[in-house]
Amino acid sequence: MKDRGKLHHKNLQTLFYPKSVAVIGTNKVTGTVPGDIFINILHADLQGIIYPVSPREKSIGGVKAYKYVIDIEEEVDLAVIVFPSSVAKLALEQCGQKGIKSVIIISAGFREVGEKGQAKEKELLEIAEKYDISFIGPNCLGVINTDPVSRLNASFARKFPAEGNIAFLSQSGALCTAVLDYAQAKNIGFSKFVSFGNKTDISEIDLLYYLMEDKKTKVILLYLEEITDGPGLMKAARDVIEKSHKPILIIKSGRTEEGASAAASHTGSLAGKDEICDAAFKQAGIIRCENIEEMFNIAIAFVYQPEPKLNRIAIITNAGGPGVLTTDAAIKSGIHLAQFSEETTLALKRSLPSTANINNPVDVIGDARADRYVAAISAAFKDENVDGLFVILTPQSMTDINTIAKEIATVASQFDKPIYTSFMGEADVASGIQILQKHNIPHYILPESMCKPFMKVYQFHQQISKSETITEAAAVYKSKEAKKRINSALNSNKKFLHEFEATQIVSEYKLPVLKSGLTTSAEEAAEVAKTIGFPVVMKVMSEKIVHKFDVGGVILNINSEIEAAEAFLKITDSVQKILPGIKIDGILVSKQVPEGLEVILGIKKDPSFGDVIMFGIGGIFVEIFKDVSFRVAPIQKNVAFEMIQEIKASKLLLGARGKKPADIECLAETIVKLSNLALDNPNIKELDINPLIVLELGKGCFVADAKIVLK
Amino acid sequence: MKDRGKLHHKNLQTLFYPKSVAVIGTNKVTGTVPGDIFINILHADLQGIIYPVSPREKSIGGVKAYKYVIDIEEEVDLAVIVFPSSVAKLALEQCGQKGIKSVIIISAGFREVGEKGQAKEKELLEIAEKYDISFIGPNCLGVINTDPVSRLNASFARKFPAEGNIAFLSQSGALCTAVLDYAQAKNIGFSKFVSFGNKTDISEIDLLYYLMEDKKTKVILLYLEEITDGPGLMKAARDVIEKSHKPILIIKSGRTEEGASAAASHTGSLAGKDEICDAAFKQAGIIRCENIEEMFNIAIAFVYQPEPKLNRIAIITNAGGPGVLTTDAAIKSGIHLAQFSEETTLALKRSLPSTANINNPVDVIGDARADRYVAAISAAFKDENVDGLFVILTPQSMTDINTIAKEIATVASQFDKPIYTSFMGEADVASGIQILQKHNIPHYILPESMCKPFMKVYQFHQQISKSETITEAAAVYKSKEAKKRINSALNSNKKFLHEFEATQIVSEYKLPVLKSGLTTSAEEAAEVAKTIGFPVVMKVMSEKIVHKFDVGGVILNINSEIEAAEAFLKITDSVQKILPGIKIDGILVSKQVPEGLEVILGIKKDPSFGDVIMFGIGGIFVEIFKDVSFRVAPIQKNVAFEMIQEIKASKLLLGARGKKPADIECLAETIVKLSNLALDNPNIKELDINPLIVLELGKGCFVADAKIVLK
Repeated sequence: MKDRGKLHHKNLQTLFYPKSVAVIGTNKVTGTVPGDIFINILHADLQGIIYPVSPREKSIGGVKAYKYVIDIEEEVDLAVIVFPSSVAKLALEQCGQKGIKSVIIISAGFREVGEKGQAKEKELLEIAEKYDISFIGPNCLGVINTDPVSRLNASFARKFPAEGNIAFLSQSGALCTAVLDYAQAKNIGFSKFVSFGNKTDISEIDLLYYLMEDKKTKVILLYLEEITDGPGLMKAARDVIEKSHKPILIIKSGRTEEGASAAASHTGSLAGKDEICDAAFKQAGIIRCENIEEMFNIAIAFVYQPEPKLNRIAIITNAGGPGVLTTDAAIKSGIHLAQFSEETTLALKRSLPSTANINNPVDVIGDARADRYVAAISAAFKDENVDGLFVILTPQSMTDINTIAKEIATVASQFDKPIYTSFMGEADVASGIQILQKHNIPHYILPESMCKPFMKVYQFHQQISKSETITEAAAVYKSKEAKKRINSALNSNKKFLHEFEATQIVSEYKLPVLKSGLTTSAEEAAEVAKTIGFPVVMKVMSEKIVHKFDVGGVILNINSEIEAAEAFLKITDSVQKILPGIKIDGILVSKQVPEGLEVILGIKKDPSFGDVIMFGIGGIFVEIFKDVSFRVAPIQKNVAFEMIQEIKASKLLLGARGKKPADIECLAETIVKLSNLALDNPNIKELDINPLIVLELGKGCFVADAKIVLK
Repeated sequence: MKDRGKLHHKNLQTLFYPKSVAVIGTNKVTGTVPGDIFINILHADLQGIIYPVSPREKSIGGVKAYKYVIDIEEEVDLAVIVFPSSVAKLALEQCGQKGIKSVIIISAGFREVGEKGQAKEKELLEIAEKYDISFIGPNCLGVINTDPVSRLNASFARKFPAEGNIAFLSQSGALCTAVLDYAQAKNIGFSKFVSFGNKTDISEIDLLYYLMEDKKTKVILLYLEEITDGPGLMKAARDVIEKSHKPILIIKSGRTEEGASAAASHTGSLAGKDEICDAAFKQAGIIRCENIEEMFNIAIAFVYQPEPKLNRIAIITNAGGPGVLTTDAAIKSGIHLAQFSEETTLALKRSLPSTANINNPVDVIGDARADRYVAAISAAFKDENVDGLFVILTPQSMTDINTIAKEIATVASQFDKPIYTSFMGEADVASGIQILQKHNIPHYILPESMCKPFMKVYQFHQQISKSETITEAAAVYKSKEAKKRINSALNSNKKFLHEFEATQIVSEYKLPVLKSGLTTSAEEAAEVAKTIGFPVVMKVMSEKIVHKFDVGGVILNINSEIEAAEAFLKITDSVQKILPGIKIDGILVSKQVPEGLEVILGIKKDPSFGDVIMFGIGGIFVEIFKDVSFRVAPIQKNVAFEMIQEIKASKLLLGARGKKPADIECLAETIVKLSNLALDNPNIKELDINPLIVLELGKGCFVADAKIVLK
């Protein structure tokens, strides 16, 4: 198969910047999808030629119509198909014959309506592959490009948005209309606006790569209901962030089981655990947003204001209460309140009345007019301890709201530090807010809402400057021996590998395992124990026994050959008594580990992201506090350290309660190796190391038990 | 002193419903506080007579002015003082002479500007007490009453709000103007609107009691920066909720240390721990809100819609994406998605197109017009498995927004179940939203925002129907012996009571202590040990030794008289070696407790709420996870159980990991007794029981160590 990624990239350029567009299946009925789309394209003032294609009409909207797209004599760059799903296939076939490479399929009635629709989608894809076509949709609202050189409104949205630097990509078409309405009221403009629907051909990944190079786009917003290619999405996000420094903001719905099942009935998707999605986004540098409002709150901070050097802000307010509320929210978000320099304090004292509070948060007092705001803002901007400003206004009877808004814009333009505003209220402050928005000063309805956007911008630039967290891991180490063992188990229809078998496999990837041997007689047990060195532990090995302790299958603290021989007999006796006739593979004799902290490592398969590594501290921490962290493989050492530090109980590893710090070096290396093992063995469905015993720093860690479940 | 609470209650009635009002210190200058207030009162159309009082003017706003308030011949019900702080005292004195009992002091320049202002405030209070005056303020925006029989606007707010059933009380004046502006744009009306400023005389507690009986008020909103009388606030809240079933919503700022210090510089308040504030509000049935938007989101749900029976909702949407996002948010809030009855499913199937999703969340599909919404809403309303409805709309080109809004209002009026709406977008949906608001259908900008209000209303009514959590505890058991011991310690200037002394005090309140005796010789130790019964523990007792283990001051597992005598010598030896010449009170011999779960109980003094009881599970749970719960004394047994269940690790007590459940009965009783002890001994600054050993259910719990710090 050809590289459709490259093809899509090329075809997307034509799709957004077509010199000619055919609208296939349009008609004269306004207020319907087929009718509105043609008019929308026509009226958007595209620099190119638009051809209506309709089996029945001679002309539409004053433009000569064609019966079939192949009837058009000139070359056509883009086709928009608005026929019902039953006819869409034929229309696409004709596009192929006509040599059109870029297509938008608006038509609904595909995968979202069940099996029959799914089959129709497959047919579309086959035609696209045959003719090297790239298509967006089906089941979508369409595509908008606000670039003046190619104003394209190939959608049935009511509104054409203002020009701006935010790209919005959405799997839900209906949400798009709400977003366009919301953004218009907030004076937010877009660069590209894409409803990609069922993403049968072009996916969010292709769009991300396209937008990476789009000069008009500074921030990418994405609403997703299903993640079909998690690793691909992560890679695309990393590439975009690393190469273009454009932040990616995502809303991913289906966080709960009920939500996921609602999404499934709506998109036919299969959802993984939401915690894993969280971890994957974090790992890829993607900013996950809770809702549309938060998404735009953060987006405007990225687009309109410079990045802060550090995270020390000054709050300037004409009302004490909101100043306190904002301080609370700032501190909770991890923002610091700037400590003013002496110079700033003096400047504030000089220009503000004696009743004002000249400490941060600065209270310019209820009767403040523009001059006090300007004085306070300038002083704070000049202070090198201040990295950004939050300006709050409440409408008092003497507050000259519009003048203050204008003056804020003027002062802000003189400094290269971010400034955010919150003019509280609604009706009275509306005109002031519009002035701020026109001057690209981010405005937030609630003053508390300034905090999260500020921190997200700050953290994003910190992350870019480090860049280590978003580079990729080393090549995967491959073990033929491990594969052989797994294949042989699969061939004998074995799904569960017990400790000895699992240990053999993990040791292939250099995970720290204990010296051990599988024995089948008391004599052999004594001999192996001697070779290993005392003390040893002995455990029964059987495919059928999962909880070895419950059947008397484990004996600890064995200190001599005689004890080892005795233990062999005792274990086999006990097991045979409790589970008569059970098949056992032998008794495992292994070195007894000194005491240490017991942690849990695991491999899980996620339907969206593939191999996921889990880490937690054993016992109650995992069971009761669900204190675990996840990352998608491959995992580098720095990411492994992140995983370790992310759990709340990590303090226990770092030396809490008077204990020495544990060997997190060894632990991190083990996580990296486990991630390698996962990638090298797609047939492993689940692997549990429980526990991994972590000793003091420098003394290593050891796999004390492991099991593997195969696919 | 007289009962000023009763006085305030009577005077507040006159304050909100005056037949005559004097505005003292007003003038003719509009755009200033003194000038605007008079005009505001005059233009609000009060059913009564208004007297301007001004030293210089003959008339103001066309009304004859008086030089002094005492010059007015007729009786005056309410005085509003707008003079500067320097003259306010004289004005108040004259009010007293004139026999005016209700006063609003707008003037600023008191406690908020420092010590001098504080003294002025004290003077005001003295005058008020002398003349039986009740006053609101100083340093406030004023008071508004929207009741048509007494439309009072004794404030310098720009706007007079619409009539409604929400009372708003605020410590911050500037916030009030923002709230009035915000509410107007959302069509939210108020019953009473009070800015109470420095609350020198009338506090939020007096206002709560007044509003409890105010027929116009259904919900009370409170913005607080400082809590001066925590127990009083809790009692008032409980009374209001219990007697009038009116919910109380509070924003309390100063959550973080920085925020609290900003609030302190702004109000001169002293802040306690925010977690304690959280616990106290919960205990009193108060609903704490994060911000103004959330507060009004919840308030409109209370005011405009009936209460739900249970928490099973139906979501009806014309867009799948927002339906999924709302499902996620609902489940996370603890809401259940209703399972439709067969009848409902049939009804939906009949009235919706085949492409619609007839399961919950119901998707009526993007091209839905009012008829589909009405059909789906009616079907859901009729279903007895549905307790409430969330209706979502996105503006598609064919969506008849206003008709849908009207039809929703019509259908809603036919059923006694709550319905909330979210018309997404902004400009296009604005007229539809206004229709909803006019018909008292709560509307939320984000569909996710419907969830928290629904749950808060549901929980509030659950709580009222139980009512047990908000009744008060039994009378305090008093111990003369404990008082004697504490007083004797205080008299000898002793601040720290060690285990033996602390145990003697806690045992006075029947907390489960172990048999023990303080011994001063090896022989005595042996004898006491024998009397107690083996095994025993022996510990050094000294005011100077806090960490007994570190000085070899503890020996466990003593099983005979000889061992006891030896232990005595060993401990005294070790302590004298490490801390030569230290004064010790003796060696405590006590029964050794069997192993059990170690929990921590404590008494803390909070500057706002007084005696607070803390509970947590020992070790890492408290140290690393900060997994503790607080309640304000007095604590009843059901509240003690709440405390126990509130911590995350409570599963350990209830029998996790194959262990038997612990004796939480005994633990809860011990918490109740400790709360009693706290109330009976105001001189105890801190008490720690660490650990309390909790055995299996039925086997009790025991204080294994305790210490007390006195004031």
